[in-house]
Amino acid sequence: MTTAAVATEQLTHEQKLDRLAEVAVRVGLGLERGQELVMTASLDTVPLARRITEHAYRAGASLVTTLFSDDEAALMRYRLAPYESFDRAPGWLYDGMGAAFKSGAARLAIAGANPSLLSNEDPEKVGRANRAVSKVYRPALELITRHEINWTIVASATPAWAASVFPDDAPDVALSKLWDAIFASSRVDADDPVAAWKTHDAGLHKRAEFLNKKRYAALQYRGPGTDFRLGLADDHLWLGGGTTAGNGAYCIPNMPTEEVFTTPHKDRADGTVTATKPLSHQGTMIEGIQVRFEGGRIVEARATKGQEVLQKLIDTDDGARRLGEVALVPHSSPIAASGLLFFNTLFDENAACHIALGQAYSSCLIDGDKLTPVQLAAKGANDSLIHVDWMIGSDKLDIDGITSAGTAEPLMRNGEWV
Amino acid sequence: MTTAAVATEQLTHEQKLDRLAEVAVRVGLGLERGQELVMTASLDTVPLARRITEHAYRAGASLVTTLFSDDEAALMRYRLAPYESFDRAPGWLYDGMGAAFKSGAARLAIAGANPSLLSNEDPEKVGRANRAVSKVYRPALELITRHEINWTIVASATPAWAASVFPDDAPDVALSKLWDAIFASSRVDADDPVAAWKTHDAGLHKRAEFLNKKRYAALQYRGPGTDFRLGLADDHLWLGGGTTAGNGAYCIPNMPTEEVFTTPHKDRADGTVTATKPLSHQGTMIEGIQVRFEGGRIVEARATKGQEVLQKLIDTDDGARRLGEVALVPHSSPIAASGLLFFNTLFDENAACHIALGQAYSSCLIDGDKLTPVQLAAKGANDSLIHVDWMIGSDKLDIDGITSAGTAEPLMRNGEWV
Ligand SMILES: [Zn+2]
Ligand SMILES: [Zn+2]
Ligand SMILES: [Zn+2]
Ligand SMILES: [Zn+2]
Repeated sequence: MTTAAVATEQLTHEQKLDRLAEVAVRVGLGLERGQELVMTASLDTVPLARRITEHAYRAGASLVTTLFSDDEAALMRYRLAPYESFDRAPGWLYDGMGAAFKSGAARLAIAGANPSLLSNEDPEKVGRANRAVSKVYRPALELITRHEINWTIVASATPAWAASVFPDDAPDVALSKLWDAIFASSRVDADDPVAAWKTHDAGLHKRAEFLNKKRYAALQYRGPGTDFRLGLADDHLWLGGGTTAGNGAYCIPNMPTEEVFTTPHKDRADGTVTATKPLSHQGTMIEGIQVRFEGGRIVEARATKGQEVLQKLIDTDDGARRLGEVALVPHSSPIAASGLLFFNTLFDENAACHIALGQAYSSCLIDGDKLTPVQLAAKGANDSLIHVDWMIGSDKLDIDGITSAGTAEPLMRNGEWV
Repeated sequence: MTTAAVATEQLTHEQKLDRLAEVAVRVGLGLERGQELVMTASLDTVPLARRITEHAYRAGASLVTTLFSDDEAALMRYRLAPYESFDRAPGWLYDGMGAAFKSGAARLAIAGANPSLLSNEDPEKVGRANRAVSKVYRPALELITRHEINWTIVASATPAWAASVFPDDAPDVALSKLWDAIFASSRVDADDPVAAWKTHDAGLHKRAEFLNKKRYAALQYRGPGTDFRLGLADDHLWLGGGTTAGNGAYCIPNMPTEEVFTTPHKDRADGTVTATKPLSHQGTMIEGIQVRFEGGRIVEARATKGQEVLQKLIDTDDGARRLGEVALVPHSSPIAASGLLFFNTLFDENAACHIALGQAYSSCLIDGDKLTPVQLAAKGANDSLIHVDWMIGSDKLDIDGITSAGTAEPLMRNGEWV
């Protein structure tokens, strides 16, 4: 990296943006020479998209195609389109993406959404539109979640997102603060960002290996409003950090990433869990979530705000009220340390222990990618159109690992690894 | 239209933009209720794209998907991507567009390209990239050129295009002048643009019908440096204005459009033609073109500037030195009246009578879309990889229609219909 010798405090915004693009392409995506790249970005993230395009071509990309989305156009649809049209999604575009992945393309998403974009829109329309997209996106998304291709998500600050995170600051100050948080958590501030990422990645792998050796049957959570036991899937596999995709490229799918995670057993969740942060779900804020599980299934769901959206979410399909992911993140993670609520899963899920409603990752089972849907279900892996992470970690959360013999071993105390 | 009652001189830019979007959707595209819309636009044309999106939803669009292109990203590819990658095109995306058209989507393109974007890039790379796109775009493009779906092209001013048209003006003045020219030629300045378009469309249809009844064997051109007889193809069909697409929707494919046009006979062009405007071809200006035909074929080609590029162009293939289109446009057309050279076919071909080197339109023959390549050639339709329009009309051009009996009937005098 040409700017590595410069003291990081002296870097201009443009230089930091360039570094972010470079680690996204080289470390996050692990783009291979001659590979095609499909990028998704919003019109508010053009500067980062251009820097990524540049670094992708420098890394030997054969072709970079960016699919830009426009928040203004999305809002016009909600306000003007016929009610009956909300079951429509551009299947032809998602099929196209799937075809690109199958023919060897890598995938990069720039995250930067306005967390409350759809908060004033009809939840019925939002739900139907989301369901329609989930359905047509599924074949392409499976190539991503099964890690058949190299992919990554990286963030760009945007005015609307910054205003949500820093509501009391002037727009330019908020934007600048959000960029700082993104640069810091993406390790762009390190003297050598690429080296810093490699060290961090090794640490996550070591933690996952430790848990894989333990082979816990379940995790026991205790904290304010939380008393919850979550069984792990048979042959579950803890993952964290980078992974070698089916196409042979090594990628770190999320930048930042601080979690180790695995597949819980869809029929083995019991007790009450209270979210420790609001959940921003496709434009709506859901606050004060408290949920009770019996036999893996949500039997009671409450929220102090956004209850209707929560209810619609877990009514999506049968798997939407069961868990598909469990992730452990120490409370001292750099993102948690920032004390910020980002209203963005990429950041907030890396600030706290979390669980996810919906679809499980088959990659979080031993040889999971070779199993049929029936075999996956038999091991406890959940199936759903949705995958929604919500935060249950805090500095007051204790977690024990429960061995197959039923012994409790302390894993986390007050939010930190023991 | 809510602003129809306002005197057009008092309209703000935003109001004119809104009117342009409305005629594009209602008259150009003829979007039907419940129809999906696929739009292509560059990042420099977002304001018009948003207004079109709004009017499409107001007209009952079920879904509007815009594929944005970025000139900056295109240039990065030319400057940084591996040489061997220029045969690559995003076939998955064009296949997706084709699938959208087949499932009922309409198509709108916003034109606004920088005429000299690639003028400094390696012509070899440009040629290969264009050929790669032509190849993968072909199946989707055929649905468009065969008018199986409703489609239209409408223009947005962009800074780079405006700088080409008004090189002596300050950037903001140039942009504003180009917008004025677009608004005027798109009839947005009329008191009731929708009504003005309907009247204009009826006029073009009437003119094409007149010519179709005449069934001229040839056209005879006389003007400064021009003395030229051009035979028309057997079963030629004059077209102009709107058309009912295969999906039943009525659309006007180009906004603006001033031409009536048909297919000349590839073996029946004799005499000398002098171009009346410079030709902008792939970033190069060709000026002072004078060409002599014998038996349909160019036997002598001169240009006062860009002679080499002209020679290369007509050497592309055998069909490149024969004619594939003849179009009649009165010198009083609003675009000709502006006196501007737009470096954009959508405008320049509607400013003057023109002929095109290369590929003929099969739709300009009776039942042409049902004919085989051999049958098309037998009727005189030309075949080539290129289709390059050049302007031969002026206020000094006279044109006669030559009947099958050999009688000359005056069609145009001093550039105007008699
Ligand atoms: Zn997670
Ligand atoms: Zn997750
Ligand atoms: Zn023409
Ligand atoms: Zn033409």
